[in-house]
Amino acid sequence: MLKPGTANQALRKVVIIGAGLIGGSFALALKKQLMLQVVGLDRDPQSLQRALALGMIDSIGTDLALALQDAQLVLIATPVAQTEAILLALYPYLQSSTVVTDVGSTKVDVIAAARRSLGAKIGQFVAAHPVAGRELSGPDAALSDLFQGKKVVLTPLPENSPSALALVAQTWQTCGAQIHQLDPQQHDQIFAAVSHLPHLLAYALMAQVADQPDAALRLEFAGSGFRDVTRIAGASPEMWRDISLANREALLIELAAYQARLQGIAAALQTQDGAQLLALFEQARTAQQAERQRHQTPLIAEELSS
Amino acid sequence: MLKPGTANQALRKVVIIGAGLIGGSFALALKKQLMLQVVGLDRDPQSLQRALALGMIDSIGTDLALALQDAQLVLIATPVAQTEAILLALYPYLQSSTVVTDVGSTKVDVIAAARRSLGAKIGQFVAAHPVAGRELSGPDAALSDLFQGKKVVLTPLPENSPSALALVAQTWQTCGAQIHQLDPQQHDQIFAAVSHLPHLLAYALMAQVADQPDAALRLEFAGSGFRDVTRIAGASPEMWRDISLANREALLIELAAYQARLQGIAAALQTQDGAQLLALFEQARTAQQAERQRHQTPLIAEELSS
Repeated sequence: MLKPGTANQALRKVVIIGAGLIGGSFALALKKQLMLQVVGLDRDPQSLQRALALGMIDSIGTDLALALQDAQLVLIATPVAQTEAILLALYPYLQSSTVVTDVGSTKVDVIAAARRSLGAKIGQFVAAHPVAGRELSGPDAALSDLFQGKKVVLTPLPENSPSALALVAQTWQTCGAQIHQLDPQQHDQIFAAVSHLPHLLAYALMAQVADQPDAALRLEFAGSGFRDVTRIAGASPEMWRDISLANREALLIELAAYQARLQGIAAALQTQDGAQLLALFEQARTAQQAERQRHQTPLIAEELSS
Repeated sequence: MLKPGTANQALRKVVIIGAGLIGGSFALALKKQLMLQVVGLDRDPQSLQRALALGMIDSIGTDLALALQDAQLVLIATPVAQTEAILLALYPYLQSSTVVTDVGSTKVDVIAAARRSLGAKIGQFVAAHPVAGRELSGPDAALSDLFQGKKVVLTPLPENSPSALALVAQTWQTCGAQIHQLDPQQHDQIFAAVSHLPHLLAYALMAQVADQPDAALRLEFAGSGFRDVTRIAGASPEMWRDISLANREALLIELAAYQARLQGIAAALQTQDGAQLLALFEQARTAQQAERQRHQTPLIAEELSS
């Protein structure tokens, strides 16, 4: 399964900070392909014990200097609000040969935090965002193929060396991911629209039904459509609080546009303007069908070739 | 596969009005279990030809009197706004031994339409709503197991005879469905919350992304969460226009509550009130996890027993 050019023979020691769904899946994917030592750190001792038992990490990093010694790569896979404190803690022990990367769903704030905390070592920080997840969290939710065929977006800094970027890109390719690049601001706008807003909508819908006195009865009649829309309301609340706050400017723009759209729908319902509703639904269906086609095409191609 | 008590030997001739996803799946499910004649009617001649070619119907009903003659059951499976015109057309040829049922996602308006059009024959109309669907429509989307394990809600009228109710209930059981009963008003409130509002939200989100000048780029980075939330935006626009208008009063109440909730989220983002966001996300996740558990339990039980 190891594709030519995606092997990463240089990787012998990796430090994972945050042994949850993403950090754990990253470790499992690398260990499937490479012989390497993985040291895990987490604020939750139970998560570390599970990660050890599940074979994601080889040891628990109790001493930061020792953990970082001779590591080629450090992956920060915690809720984004913790990034700055973690980078400040790493700073004194960070050797010039070590590259630090993250998995945050927001990039402008993470880069600002990295600039504040790493100072002259900022070139060693490669900002990245794997576009993969599950509605579960914690080490037990980790999957070795979570990143297979998924996108990882790098938002490089002018200070990043080609070799630092290549190390992060190749490591994610080893996990099965496809590498993309975006400008940090553009990244945050795009993900406010296609990821952060949808999470807010799902949380809000689930909370609205759960708040009703007859919630149990309502949920009894909820079909697969409701379950599809609310599936991502199972994602980590702390992670999504941090993302929402970190990307609040872009998110408020998307949210305001969405509220205006709902106001238009409410007005169409009040005036019984069926033509306006139909036009909106038609436009959405056309886009949804194009999306579905796009995502089915590779699957069909795969079936035909096997 | 035929469970005791769910057979429906009395059914020899069924008329399907609307040879699409629901009507076609109903016909396929019955034909798998029973020897019976299915006559199809549809405003679209192409759909009828497909339904004939796919073996859903045995003949196309060109003459209404002939189509209805000696039929035990008529299923109306069209967008809900067409119900009244169809019932008016059926009325002159409706024999007293024939039961008419529907599949509409709204029940108060359908029952009002039935009362207006059927008059003294209203007892022959059994209002029903199968809680099943796909993001595809038309006869080619039909599946013989679409209703397997799904709920069908009956909203009986005082005028319905026990035998008319039993015929409809048993026929849906033959299709693999579980029968439930609700009051029509209660039905419409519940489905406004767990089905109609989620459809509006999905259509609005998909349209919002599709409306952007960089829509293609945004959709390129949309992950599985976005696709889950917007999947039902692939549903039939005409069907959902009709449902939205038919159930607009209950839907406007749910929509207003949701808009207020989004307003609260926007305020929390503006004031950076992380505690409020966390509380909302926690509540939603708890409800989502309970839902997931409830829906996984039968699957696990099945696995263990096989």
